[in-house]
Order: sequence, then C-alpha cells, then structure tokens
Amino acid sequence: MDLLPLEALTTPAALVDLDRVEANLARVAAYTREHRLHWRPHTKTHKTAELTALQLAAGAMGATVATPREAAVMATACDDVLLAYPPVGPSRLAQLMALPRRTRLTVALDSVEALEGLGHAARDAGRTVGVLVELDLGMRRVGVQSPADAVALARAVAATPGVTYRGIIFYPGHVRVPVEQQESALKDQGARVREFVDALASEGLRPDVVSGGSTPMLWRSHEVEGLTEIRPGINVLNDRNTAALNACAWNECAFSVLTTVVSTAVPGQVVVDAGSKALAKEEGLAPTGGYGALLDRPELVVRSVSEEHGLLDVSGTSWRPRVGDRLRVVPNHVCAAVNLHERLHVLRGDTVTATWAVAARGW
Amino acid sequence: MDLLPLEALTTPAALVDLDRVEANLARVAAYTREHRLHWRPHTKTHKTAELTALQLAAGAMGATVATPREAAVMATACDDVLLAYPPVGPSRLAQLMALPRRTRLTVALDSVEALEGLGHAARDAGRTVGVLVELDLGMRRVGVQSPADAVALARAVAATPGVTYRGIIFYPGHVRVPVEQQESALKDQGARVREFVDALASEGLRPDVVSGGSTPMLWRSHEVEGLTEIRPGINVLNDRNTAALNACAWNECAFSVLTTVVSTAVPGQVVVDAGSKALAKEEGLAPTGGYGALLDRPELVVRSVSEEHGLLDVSGTSWRPRVGDRLRVVPNHVCAAVNLHERLHVLRGDTVTATWAVAARGW
Repeated sequence: MDLLPLEALTTPAALVDLDRVEANLARVAAYTREHRLHWRPHTKTHKTAELTALQLAAGAMGATVATPREAAVMATACDDVLLAYPPVGPSRLAQLMALPRRTRLTVALDSVEALEGLGHAARDAGRTVGVLVELDLGMRRVGVQSPADAVALARAVAATPGVTYRGIIFYPGHVRVPVEQQESALKDQGARVREFVDALASEGLRPDVVSGGSTPMLWRSHEVEGLTEIRPGINVLNDRNTAALNACAWNECAFSVLTTVVSTAVPGQVVVDAGSKALAKEEGLAPTGGYGALLDRPELVVRSVSEEHGLLDVSGTSWRPRVGDRLRVVPNHVCAAVNLHERLHVLRGDTVTATWAVAARGW
Repeated sequence: MDLLPLEALTTPAALVDLDRVEANLARVAAYTREHRLHWRPHTKTHKTAELTALQLAAGAMGATVATPREAAVMATACDDVLLAYPPVGPSRLAQLMALPRRTRLTVALDSVEALEGLGHAARDAGRTVGVLVELDLGMRRVGVQSPADAVALARAVAATPGVTYRGIIFYPGHVRVPVEQQESALKDQGARVREFVDALASEGLRPDVVSGGSTPMLWRSHEVEGLTEIRPGINVLNDRNTAALNACAWNECAFSVLTTVVSTAVPGQVVVDAGSKALAKEEGLAPTGGYGALLDRPELVVRSVSEEHGLLDVSGTSWRPRVGDRLRVVPNHVCAAVNLHERLHVLRGDTVTATWAVAARGW
C-alpha cells in the first residue's frame, strides 16, 4: 500500500507502533531462549496473521488461539496451533477439522464430554489431534480440580482413538500479586504443578508439555518449576493494565487508539470519539482509574465512556485541546480493544506503512 | 434463506425474537400516536437496515444514528436521518456528504468549530444540512451549558450558509430515578427545556424540533412539556438493564445470545462460551449484579466474564446443565452486545427465518 500520514486516518483508529512491537518481541524471544522455555504466544491479543508471522520469525514455536476462527486465520501463518479452549459442539468441531492437514493441532479440555466429541470428530476427519488436560490452579474458571481428576481425564485421553495425550495446561491469570509476594506465589504455583505432574507420572502419564504463563508474571515464568511452554498474549502490544502491574514500561505500549476531540462544551472536560466501542469498557488496574490514558500524557485519563464518547478529565491541568484536535489513547485491556476494530494501522513513527485486517474477530 | 432450527447455529450467536420486536414496535407506535410525538428511533441499538425498515413501517418518521456508517446503512432504508453526534473531522464530514442526495440529513452539534466544518462541507457538496443545537440538561457529556450559549450557537447556525437551523436536542440518559421521583424529574426537565426554548424564541430562534427521550423514561416522555420528538433506541429489543429499570417487562426482551456450556469442572459453576466478546462487559443495574441473565431463568446470572468465558453461578440451585447444553442469555446492555456480533439471527419461535448483517458496526 501507499504510505499514509497519521492525519489521513478516520478516527477512531487502532494504531500499532511497529518499532515497539519489534522491541517487545525481541525481549520475550531473548527471555524464553535464556530460560529454555517454548514460546507459544496467545494470538487472541492481536487477531492477525501478520503479527503471528512476526512472532514466529522472532522465535515463537507455535500459536495459541481461543476460537476456531482464530485457528483458521493463524493456520495461514503457522503450522502448530494450540486451541486453549474446550472444543464443544458440532459446529466448533467442524471448523477445527477444516483446518489444513499440515496444521499440527492441539486442544485443551477439562471434561469427558469435550473429549468424546473431539475424538469422534477427529476420527471422522481422519486426523490425530493432540490434547492437553486443563488444570485449575486457583483461577476457578475452567480446569480439573485435583490430581486424581487429572489422572482420570488423561487416562481417558490416552484411551480415545483420534486424539493423543500431550500434557497439561493451566492459566495463572489470577496471579497478580505485589512484587514482594511474587516469589512465594510462583513457588506455590510450581509446587501445585508438581503435585499434578507427579500424580500423572506415577500412572505412566508424565506430561511432555507443561503449558502455563501469562503476561502479568511473564518475566518470572522460569521460576515455576517444570514449565515447558509459556503463552503470553498481551505483551506483544501491552496496555495500560500491564503497565500498572509493572509487567511492561509505558513506552513498551505498542497499541493506541487515535481519536478526535468532538466536544469541549462541559467545563473541565474533553470529549473524544473513542468510547466503549473503540477502547472497550474494561476496568482499570491503574490507581488513577478510568478506561484508558493518553499515550503522551498518561496522567490524563479517560474517566468514563459511553459507546461513542470518551470523557477526559482535564480539570486538574491547564491543557485545553480544541475541537478537532487528535489524541492517542492507550486502553486498559488491549485484547478487548483490538476485538472492536476491523483493522490495525501499522506505524513507523507517524507514518502508516501497512493496514492489517483483524481477520480473526468473531468465532 | 432456508429456515434453520436454532440447534444449527454456531455459538455464541445473537438472536432476535421477531414476535417480541413487533409487539415492542406496536407499543411505542401507539404511545407516540396517542401523545402526538414524532418517533425517531436510535438505530445504533440494532445497526441493521432491516430493523429500521420495520420501525418505519410501524410509524417511525425517521432514523437517529451516531456514526457516518450508521447513517450510510440506514439511508438505504430511510430518507430522513438525524446524526445525534458532533460531525468533527474531514473524513466524517466526507462520509456524511456522500449520503444519497435524497437523504434529508440533520446533525446535532454543540460548538462553533463543528458548525464551521459542517458548513464548509455542505457548501462544497452543494447540500443543505439541518442542525439541532445540543443542550446539556445535566448529563454532563456534550451540549451547551446555558440558554445564552444556546442562543449564541443557534444564531451562528442561522448565519452559516449550507446549514439550516431546525431546533434543539438533548439526551436525558442520566435520568434514572426511582418511580416516586420520576414525576418531579420530568417536570424539572420540562422547566429546563422551557428556559432554553423561551430564550431562543425571544431572539426569533424558536425551535421547530425539540428532540429528547430515552428508553429508561420512554413511557413518560409526554410529561416533558414542549417535546416534539423522541429517540428511544433500546426499547425495540430491550435488555436486562431496561427490565431492571421497569421500563420493560422481562418477556419484552427480544434479544438474547445463544451459548453453549463448555465446562462444569469448577463446583457450583457453569461456564458458557458467551463472555465479554459476546455479551459486552457492561455493569448491571439489576440488584443481582453480573453481566446478563438466562432468558428462561432470569434469577441465574452470568456472574463474571472474560473474553470467551461467561461464568454462571448455579450454587444456589439444584439445576445442573451439562457440557454441550445450550442456553440463552439476555445481556445487560443490548446496544453494546449487538455491536460485537456480525449478524443477527431472526427467530419465529425456535426457527431461524432470516439472518441480518449488523452492517452498521464500526465507523
């Protein structure tokens, strides 16, 4: 495509700073190399084949996805795909079985019902699908509850034609503890993982894959004993919540929403055209609250949002942008924000050098 | 299209119950006829030309929109479109000016900057665009603050070639008061509107259009003195928040999300495949909290959501759906939920009789 200046974009527009993306990729690549962890980024964060290709080029060994559509899109760039979501229902299974034959597919699940459906679909399709048994390590969302349950399900996996047992998976997304408690939290996580691994090993079901990790504790993943693979999603783009957790620096935030000031009629307030439809209405972990902050003035916060309106509180400053001015907002949660946009505009500096379809939205 | 049974749909899927839509339309049509109010529904709720066509057939006199894309889509079904959003920036203005010549376009604004841009664009396009001066009646989002400011802006509108002054507009979306305080709230609103109208009239700028109204107080709109037009959006589909406000009955909720149980591994909890990406993460006004409730068991609540997971608390009941079962969830805020779906599946009973593209998503 032709190069475009930033000013030519219609707002609200989703922007990706490619210099920052490359730095973020290099950092996680170096980290995972140093600690001999497999790096399988969760691609739901960006939902584009293009960014998956960059992640693979930087050293990722495969892609993680949450939906069959994400699997289909990422399979155009990547031959090793993990669906970290229970594959339940005939249409989801049909979508999965329609993946290219070359795609090495692995699926996480926590129930015999999901396993049976997957086994049937795989046999009908003449494929072999890898399975990871999902564990609940305290997040209480999905996952088997005890080592005995894990052993029972792993045994069922091993006995089901069409699928092959590959190991265990968990998501420690609930582990967001203050720095001084992180070491013991990671030790606890490692001890809990070991209970499951030992129980499985004693039944001849030692997991080849022990898949964990999340962005908030990304840089300490190596402290979790026994981990073979991490699946950070957010860290390729980062966001305001990740910065609030000190899991990235503010200048590692590679995603922002370009927005236009549309009203300054209410004193002390600036209204921009990025509301919940552009930023997502996701609670903030930053102590200053709100739904996002200005890239260049992170102390200025989008205090409230309705669908098409973002309300910036400027009462504490003398800065007064005018109707028509453009601002860039870093949202609290990048995955939710990306999902609201049809395309990502890719920047080098202030020049749009490419536009990527967010092809993996939906299901 | 061929008729489909509900079971054939991939989940999560957005469903619209057409019998309920028709009843909702008939009720608001009768109400606005009785009270001689113009009915200009806000089509951001459903974002489809098909539902706009049904609203016009039921008696609506035009469509309200929030974005240029909504304007373009609704203009295929409706020749009288109100953009209830400041038209700021060259690309938004270009999109508006590209509307069909037959479209009677009116725009709400609250600043001289927005007015000047619109006037330029209209003159360049050889069109005349109607303008409503936006008032802030207490919501503190957009809108001029005082009758004097309204007079100044209306005067500027009247003096700007390419645009024509049509009246005033406001959004009383903040008025969500207990039933026993509604009468005085509506009287206050009427008194405030009268201040603005009197000030404008005394300067020869009496508004032909006085546009207000929202779903929460819809059925008492006639108590606001001087109102000529109402713009309810949600009431065509309704949602859990509207039911919580007693502005609709639960069986008037015409929108739901079909979802599949994907995990029951955590005791007392059922996980469905409708999370924040399918329901939207919008705070609930219902006293039972959460992000949505089951259509057939409204006491069962989606307690928390992540992107692909909705967590139903079933600990207080003996009901235990199984992995693979399908449920229908009514979300808190229908507009935000519709915006997340590519299409609406239209039901008569349990049969899908049509599928409508949510063509007006994005900007």
